[in-house]
Formats: sequence, structure tokens, C-alpha cells
Amino acid sequence: MDDFFSVLKRYKKLVDDHIFAKLPNSHFIPEIENLFEMINDYPRRSGKGLRPSILLIFCQAFGGKIESAINTAAALEIFQNWIVIHDDIEDGSELRRGQPALHVKYGMPLALNAGDALAGKMWELLNDNRDILGSELTLNIIDQFLNMYDKTTAGQHIELSWVQNKRWDLTRDDYFNMCKRKTSWYTCATPALTGAMIAGADEKYNDTITEFGIDLGIAFQIQDDVLNLAGKEEAYGKEIAGDLWEGKRTLITIDLMEKATSEQKEFLRATFDMERTAKKAEDINKIIDLIKEYESLESAIETSIELASKARSSFAGLDSSIDPTQRKVILELIDFMINRKF
Amino acid sequence: MDDFFSVLKRYKKLVDDHIFAKLPNSHFIPEIENLFEMINDYPRRSGKGLRPSILLIFCQAFGGKIESAINTAAALEIFQNWIVIHDDIEDGSELRRGQPALHVKYGMPLALNAGDALAGKMWELLNDNRDILGSELTLNIIDQFLNMYDKTTAGQHIELSWVQNKRWDLTRDDYFNMCKRKTSWYTCATPALTGAMIAGADEKYNDTITEFGIDLGIAFQIQDDVLNLAGKEEAYGKEIAGDLWEGKRTLITIDLMEKATSEQKEFLRATFDMERTAKKAEDINKIIDLIKEYESLESAIETSIELASKARSSFAGLDSSIDPTQRKVILELIDFMINRKF
Repeated sequence: MDDFFSVLKRYKKLVDDHIFAKLPNSHFIPEIENLFEMINDYPRRSGKGLRPSILLIFCQAFGGKIESAINTAAALEIFQNWIVIHDDIEDGSELRRGQPALHVKYGMPLALNAGDALAGKMWELLNDNRDILGSELTLNIIDQFLNMYDKTTAGQHIELSWVQNKRWDLTRDDYFNMCKRKTSWYTCATPALTGAMIAGADEKYNDTITEFGIDLGIAFQIQDDVLNLAGKEEAYGKEIAGDLWEGKRTLITIDLMEKATSEQKEFLRATFDMERTAKKAEDINKIIDLIKEYESLESAIETSIELASKARSSFAGLDSSIDPTQRKVILELIDFMINRKF
Repeated sequence: MDDFFSVLKRYKKLVDDHIFAKLPNSHFIPEIENLFEMINDYPRRSGKGLRPSILLIFCQAFGGKIESAINTAAALEIFQNWIVIHDDIEDGSELRRGQPALHVKYGMPLALNAGDALAGKMWELLNDNRDILGSELTLNIIDQFLNMYDKTTAGQHIELSWVQNKRWDLTRDDYFNMCKRKTSWYTCATPALTGAMIAGADEKYNDTITEFGIDLGIAFQIQDDVLNLAGKEEAYGKEIAGDLWEGKRTLITIDLMEKATSEQKEFLRATFDMERTAKKAEDINKIIDLIKEYESLESAIETSIELASKARSSFAGLDSSIDPTQRKVILELIDFMINRKF
């Protein structure tokens, strides 16, 4: 996995350099300078840079150049950054990448607006593609981002609705339906598709790339849910067991809810659906014990391994025209998605 | 003004028809159907349709056709709708167009996300221009929207910062600097510029149109602040004196703060910066009395009349190539902006 880390680091450096050359940072009106400070905040925290790297990897895999794709990769990284500003507000999250969430640091109203402002910078980057890729490809890429945007907000709505309506009558399929929208498109499918598109890849690959991306994206999210419970806070950068405190519907908690006795179910429902501040640490610990008892963590890990294996098969179905170096990198990527510790 | 109402109504009908043909409204996943219900909510409330009408009026004024501009006008109306979903959350507003704000109706997390989803629909509409206007003009219009987006979020940030930092050491110029960003671009300057651009107007008019739009936009906002104090709730659709309850920095409150004695200033600061729920009706009434005493309302009205007059001069500087019928409509528009009761 060390090899893949260094690949990721190299791509991330390129993307970051592009982002910080593009994001505004000074203004003669002090309040606007403060807004610029806010929109630079999350991008300056050390993320993995996974999504833009997938875009660049797929662009190179189909024979494209980094110079053509770097601006779109930067736009994708900006997407991730503004959407999590809003997510953190919606979920009442306290930490992001090891530091206080933006709304905790600056207050909700300014943070919400800064998320909007940063979203504007994403669209500006995409419009800048005009000089790099020409008008037609620029609009086609905007189309891909619109699809991703549409899917992500729909997935987020499903998840938030479950929390708001205290829904726990959920199946694994419900989870997959939510997760492929909320996570897979922007994490894998759109990066891979857009990278291939910039490289001028044949459209006949689109369905396979999409399937690959959907499966791998769900596998990635499950590993995120696993790390949330079993990871180390320094590496993971979010609060450990934060999902339990927030009452999040993950494959782990849905599995637990399915397996629990009716008495345990009652306890779980009551605890999960309490206001965060009303929850007690001992109840969270009791839930962690139940997760161990029912092996819900192990069951989730198994599912993520299966999905990664499906993604590997899809990828094998892609034509041999793929660059061999990048083929190796993509296989490492698949492993990384389910084995990562951060 | 009755003539202008009927013009506005006619345009609004065309824009609404286009919007509701484009916004999605049914989905096999119930949660997503609920999201669609939410993004249709504000657009279905009876707004004035002022901004898209200005776009259509300017398009026709420069010889363009409604069919070419209707899709962009709809995107502009969608901009207004999603941005106020977020504004209402940021400001803690309770009413919008006479009904509970979206976050009051559905809860903050779902409303924030629905605002994002609706913003996506705006960009989708703009991308649809490709088939109507061709790729180049489509991207040029996106550029105009990006400028508007950038200005609006910056203006909103300035205003929110004032509230958060309890700033009252503000001048009229501070207000104009905030207001031209927060209101003028999306209310007047961008609609007029974009309408002219779709009509293929000569770029030499751009600076004059921009100046016209900036001045008229500030005049519009001042009239909004006036109506917030002196309007009728049924017509205005927002809570009367809501600005005072929210502690908003308007030309009226800034003027009052400048004119008040130091003892009164102390009372005003303390009251304005209190949490909304901690404020008392008698204190709000006392502030209303002070506004009367210092004639801050009258002073604001005077400023809006001056700005409208400046806008009229700018408009007179536009070439005689403007369609005479539309010239008359634009002069009526200017009057409407400062005399409207809703």
C-alpha cells in the first residue's frame, strides 16, 4: 500500500498547487478577506486527495495528460470541500480532518454561506476549462458534474430523512440505494468517468466505468463507517464512534438493528434517536458491545471486500488499451479503498 | 403602476410555466420525491418574478426574443429561490412569502440540502442553453451567473459578519458596499446584462447597464427595508419589523444609530444584538418611536428616490436603438422599484 500512498501524495500536491493558485485570498474589504480565509480553510486541511487522484489516474490510464485534467481534478476536490462544509452543518458534526468543523470555528451562518461561495469557485474552475479543453468538452464535463451533484444531494436527502423521521426499519438494499447516491458518484464514478472523458476514451467504456465506480464507492463508504468505529482518531481525523453519537444509519448499525432482540432494538432506537447532547457515554459503550456480540463490524467488512472484488472484475472487463502502469495503480487503488486506515 | 403589474404578471406566468416543466416532481424512492416537493416549494409560493422579468424586458429592449431568454430567466428565478432558502437559515427568518420558511417547515438539515439541490437545477437549466443559444453564448451566460454568484455570497458574508461581530460603527458607504454586492447584482445588474447579451446587444452598453443595475438594485433593497417597517404583512409577505427583531443592519437602522444620543445608542446596541427570543415587543416599539423621531425612514426613502433618479439618467444614456415599448416599460420598472408595496 506504501506505493499507492506515494502516488496519492504526488497527485495531491499537483492538485493543491492548482487550487491555491486559483482560490482568492486577499481583498481590500476586511469582511471579504475573512470569507476568503474561510473558503481556503478546509482545502488547507490535509485530506487524502483521493477523488482528484482517481480522476487523474483514469485520465492517464486512457492515454490522457495530467495538464489537461488538473483543472477538473481541482474542481472535484473543491466539490468535496464545499459539500462537507454543508454536511457538517446538517449532521451537527464537530470535527473535520482533526480540527473543529467550519461552523464550529466561525458560526453556522457564515459557514453555510462560505460553503456556497466555495461551490461558486468549483463552477468557476469548470468554466475555466474552456481555454484548456474547448467549449464542447467543457460543457460535457459540466454535465458530468451536474449528474454527480444531483445524485449526491439526493443521497444526502435520503440519509437526513432517515435521521429526521427516526427510521430504523431499513434493509441493506436501502443502505446501498442511499450510499451509491451519496458517496459513489462523487468519490469514484464521476472522477473515473470524467478522467476518461478528458483523455478522449471511447464512450463504450462508460457503463463499465460507472459500475466499477458505484461498487468501489460503496466499499469506500463502508470502510469509512468501519474506521469511524475501529479507527484511530489521529489517522482518521474524525471523532471515533461519532456515527453512534450522531445516530447515523450505516451498514453496521443497520445490521445490528436487524440482528438485535426486540428488547435490544428498543434500547438502540431510543439511544440513537436521542439528541446528541442527551446521549450518555455508557450507552454508546453498550452499543459498541452489541456490535461486537453480533459481529456487525465483521459483516460490514465482508461486504466491502465483496464489493471491491466486484469492482476488480468490472475493471478487468475494460479493454487492454489501458496503460499498464496505470492498471497496476488502479488495482492498488481498489485495495486501498477497503484497507485504508485514514 | 397598474400597467407594470400586468407586464410583470405576464412575464412571471411564462417563467413559472418553464420552471415547472423543468423541475422534477416524482420519484420511485419516497425520500427523493420528498426532496422534489421541497425544491418545488419556494418556487410555488407567489413571488413577484421581478428578476426574470427584468431579464426578459432587457432582452426585448435590445431586439431579442422571449423564446431565446426564457430558459435563462427561469435559471435566474431559481437562483433567487435557492439563495433565499439558505438566507432564511442564516438569518433565522421565520416567514417567506407569507408562509413558514423552508427550514421551519422541514427542519434545517433537509432545507439546507434542498437549497443545494435547487442550486443544481439552476446550473442544469444554464447548461440546457446549449441547445437554444449554442455553446459559446451558454458559457458566456454561465460567466455572468458566476460573477453574480460571487458578488451575492460576498455581500451576504459582509452582512452576516456585521451581525456576528455586533458591528454598529457603520456608515452609509459601508451599507452601499454591502448592498450592491448582496442585492444589486442578482436583482438588476445581471438580469439586465444577461438579457442584453442574449439579444446580441453591443458590448459598449455593458458599463452603463451595470451602473443602472447597481443603483436600481440598492434603491430596491432600501424600499424592501422600508416595507419591512412600514408595509402591510399581507402584501409584503414577511413579518413586519422582522428586521428589527433580527437586528439587521439596514440604511434605516444605520441612520438611526448615527443620529441617536449616546444613551439611546447604548439601548439600541443592547436590544439589536440580543438573541431574537430574548427581545421584548416594548423595546421594538421604542425603537420604532426613535425611527419616527429621527426621520430615519424618510431619509432612507429620499436616498432610494435619488438612486432611482441616477438609474433613470444612466438609462437615458443608452442608445436610441432600444425598442420604444420596452423603454416605457423600463421607466415604469424604475418607478415600481421604489414605490412598490410588495
